[in-house]
Amino acid sequence: MKFERKDILGIKELSVDEINLILETAESFLEISTRKIKKVPILRGKTIINLFYEASTRTRTSFEIAGKRLSADTINISASTSSVVKGETLIDTARNLEAMNPDVIVIRHSASGAPHLLARLVKQSIINAGDGAHEHPTQALLDMMTIKEHKGKIAGLNVAIIGDIEHSRVARSNIYGLSKMGANVVLAGPATMLPRDIEQMGVKVYNKIEDAIEGVDVIMMLRIQLERQKQCIFPSLREYSQHYCLNRNNIKLAKKDVIVMHPGPINRGVEISPDIADDPSCSVILDQVNKGVAVRMALLYLLTGGGE
Amino acid sequence: MKFERKDILGIKELSVDEINLILETAESFLEISTRKIKKVPILRGKTIINLFYEASTRTRTSFEIAGKRLSADTINISASTSSVVKGETLIDTARNLEAMNPDVIVIRHSASGAPHLLARLVKQSIINAGDGAHEHPTQALLDMMTIKEHKGKIAGLNVAIIGDIEHSRVARSNIYGLSKMGANVVLAGPATMLPRDIEQMGVKVYNKIEDAIEGVDVIMMLRIQLERQKQCIFPSLREYSQHYCLNRNNIKLAKKDVIVMHPGPINRGVEISPDIADDPSCSVILDQVNKGVAVRMALLYLLTGGGE
Amino acid sequence: MKFERKDILGIKELSVDEINLILETAESFLEISTRKIKKVPILRGKTIINLFYEASTRTRTSFEIAGKRLSADTINISASTSSVVKGETLIDTARNLEAMNPDVIVIRHSASGAPHLLARLVKQSIINAGDGAHEHPTQALLDMMTIKEHKGKIAGLNVAIIGDIEHSRVARSNIYGLSKMGANVVLAGPATMLPRDIEQMGVKVYNKIEDAIEGVDVIMMLRIQLERQKQCIFPSLREYSQHYCLNRNNIKLAKKDVIVMHPGPINRGVEISPDIADDPSCSVILDQVNKGVAVRMALLYLLTGGGE
Repeated sequence: MKFERKDILGIKELSVDEINLILETAESFLEISTRKIKKVPILRGKTIINLFYEASTRTRTSFEIAGKRLSADTINISASTSSVVKGETLIDTARNLEAMNPDVIVIRHSASGAPHLLARLVKQSIINAGDGAHEHPTQALLDMMTIKEHKGKIAGLNVAIIGDIEHSRVARSNIYGLSKMGANVVLAGPATMLPRDIEQMGVKVYNKIEDAIEGVDVIMMLRIQLERQKQCIFPSLREYSQHYCLNRNNIKLAKKDVIVMHPGPINRGVEISPDIADDPSCSVILDQVNKGVAVRMALLYLLTGGGE
Repeated sequence: MKFERKDILGIKELSVDEINLILETAESFLEISTRKIKKVPILRGKTIINLFYEASTRTRTSFEIAGKRLSADTINISASTSSVVKGETLIDTARNLEAMNPDVIVIRHSASGAPHLLARLVKQSIINAGDGAHEHPTQALLDMMTIKEHKGKIAGLNVAIIGDIEHSRVARSNIYGLSKMGANVVLAGPATMLPRDIEQMGVKVYNKIEDAIEGVDVIMMLRIQLERQKQCIFPSLREYSQHYCLNRNNIKLAKKDVIVMHPGPINRGVEISPDIADDPSCSVILDQVNKGVAVRMALLYLLTGGGE
Repeated sequence: MKFERKDILGIKELSVDEINLILETAESFLEISTRKIKKVPILRGKTIINLFYEASTRTRTSFEIAGKRLSADTINISASTSSVVKGETLIDTARNLEAMNPDVIVIRHSASGAPHLLARLVKQSIINAGDGAHEHPTQALLDMMTIKEHKGKIAGLNVAIIGDIEHSRVARSNIYGLSKMGANVVLAGPATMLPRDIEQMGVKVYNKIEDAIEGVDVIMMLRIQLERQKQCIFPSLREYSQHYCLNRNNIKLAKKDVIVMHPGPINRGVEISPDIADDPSCSVILDQVNKGVAVRMALLYLLTGGGE
């Protein structure tokens, strides 16, 4: 199968075949990062621009490492040191970058739909590295890759996503992806953090974490993103934690071999207790980060004509 | 002809032969950025430092891409994360960088003359990427390259530069360059934005944009740089725009095949109407950005002994 | 001799043999930075992360250039644009980076012991690029390399370190290193800037600069680090300068062929008079910077299995 897309904007529009192709390509790249010489020449002479309008360590670093291990030239632009401060529009910034002939522009932006706007306007490939509360497709792909490795499959698994669903692009992308791949997705969170009509996405919704995680194979905890909440939607972190923190007690409700995931950065003791986050018998959080580099290598490769 | 200069500080001191050599070298590099593998090894093992004391996206990115496509190692230093915050003088910073044996230091600084100071003090090549309201030679070179491509020549053309001449290093460098190359340069802008005695540079000055652009081959609009204006020199952006914005109406006064230029970032609707900026039949704004990478590749190549 | 350490955390734990191995390796790398093609392929395919929680030009740039001249991939992370702003702990940041399979993490942090914490937690090599007021081992190594070049040896030399000893990681690392290598170290500074019981480190302490530098071979001036002083420990910079500034007068007390060092950035006229700092007959300040790149190349090489 050949990968035909110009851009990776969201999981919503990807087919099962496309997701499988990406995951298989990523699996084949995983080994490169364990070599003594962690570098292959397949993207030599390609230019990748990381255009980050929001602060990021892991995602930007992951894309930069992915690009460099494929021998691409990587250019970082962060909003704080760019002409954004001079009031240039996103469209003009993108068109200017386009004129410098990059091959891929990776964009993170606080506005939902920003990558889609760019994808329509510029001829280069766009990868959405997170747009507002909309999608974060590379996160969902690395999550699916992690689940597949630990469980051998995605279809038929029961997956609980817990926390601030409303503000989470990670949740949205994973709901699309996991449902497509045949998993049963259930959600839990305070009523103020659940989007209306979320059941229309084909998921079951609970208010209590205990109801959601009962008997599941995978628990995905979300980060409380205080910076994205426009209003006070819960009384206090302490109260949130009392009801929704994953800990030694409530995790017993899940399957014995449950795996625990988190997109990071973790608020220790808020959405997940430190002993669970650090427990190698269930936590696959750092494994997710590891898969992230491979998934991004796969996408950079496929979008620049890999396999042709 | 061999390029003998150590530094590129301004257009003022360049000869016509030197400008022609740079433009021809840049033209020969233009094709590299359109290849599948956009990289040649001719600056391998050279170190280029981008030392930016002012925020920039396009110029810094353009220099970084230019360096990387020639296989140089590029190092970015921005004032906000550097020892500038510890109060080190520019001279000491430059001498410290010199001691690390770079080949070229590209500097942007808010103080006019900063690159010239460095050029006297350090043995490496200095490229001025914009110094205060003084010069921005790489911008003028890419502007001349763009004009030459679209008009086949520079000599004999009528070029109007419109806007805040007083605060514009782009205007200053272009007035030097275009006059040297045989173009007739006319200016227009509010009286408060025109330097005194500007006619001594061999240009004609008008107050009205309509008078300046009548019959010209090239219109170069300048950015209103609010951040560089120390005092309130015009009542409002709206009033400025009413008198000096290039639009569908006044552009009819120019030649039918006029080209429209802008160094970016654009203040849409202030100095240029969006329909003109985006009109492919006259606007060459993004083409300027494209030429910028080639001009910077040419300069990096020539300054590091290219062609020897 | 084979280098067996996983990390470079401080000079305190290094043996004389290890220091000699590092300095000899650095001396052999010095020549690379003077070549026309300043690049060797020995760290190709290695990933080096520069994780800087404090602003820095020279140290970060020096590490980045060192990595690039050895053909490593270098990734910069500065606290201001990272998930540090999202409240992630240092430990979680480090473990996340570990999961991306870098080879070396270079860290600068305002907290003493931060690199040691990382070294225990992650499997990759950690280099301390300065931790609080604790150690700055690469600075001490480049200082020793500079002394060795100019004096032919370290053992038996008399070295005076002058200034704010209490807050200086540079002083601490040099006291360890120079004492180990057989130099006699004397200190001088205001009583408020001298740590209690500092004599236990085997050094002589004076209050007056004149007493300390009498007859010495090497004077090492420290930077007044106003940003690290939690309280007002001296009445004014002017008064400090009157008593502790190295100048044309007091330098006569040292040996005729004394060399003057400073880790930079210099506060001209505060701890050192400009004519001394810029006097090529005694100042080796820029030579220190030059040696810094070679020392960092040596460490990156040795920690990644160089010489195996």
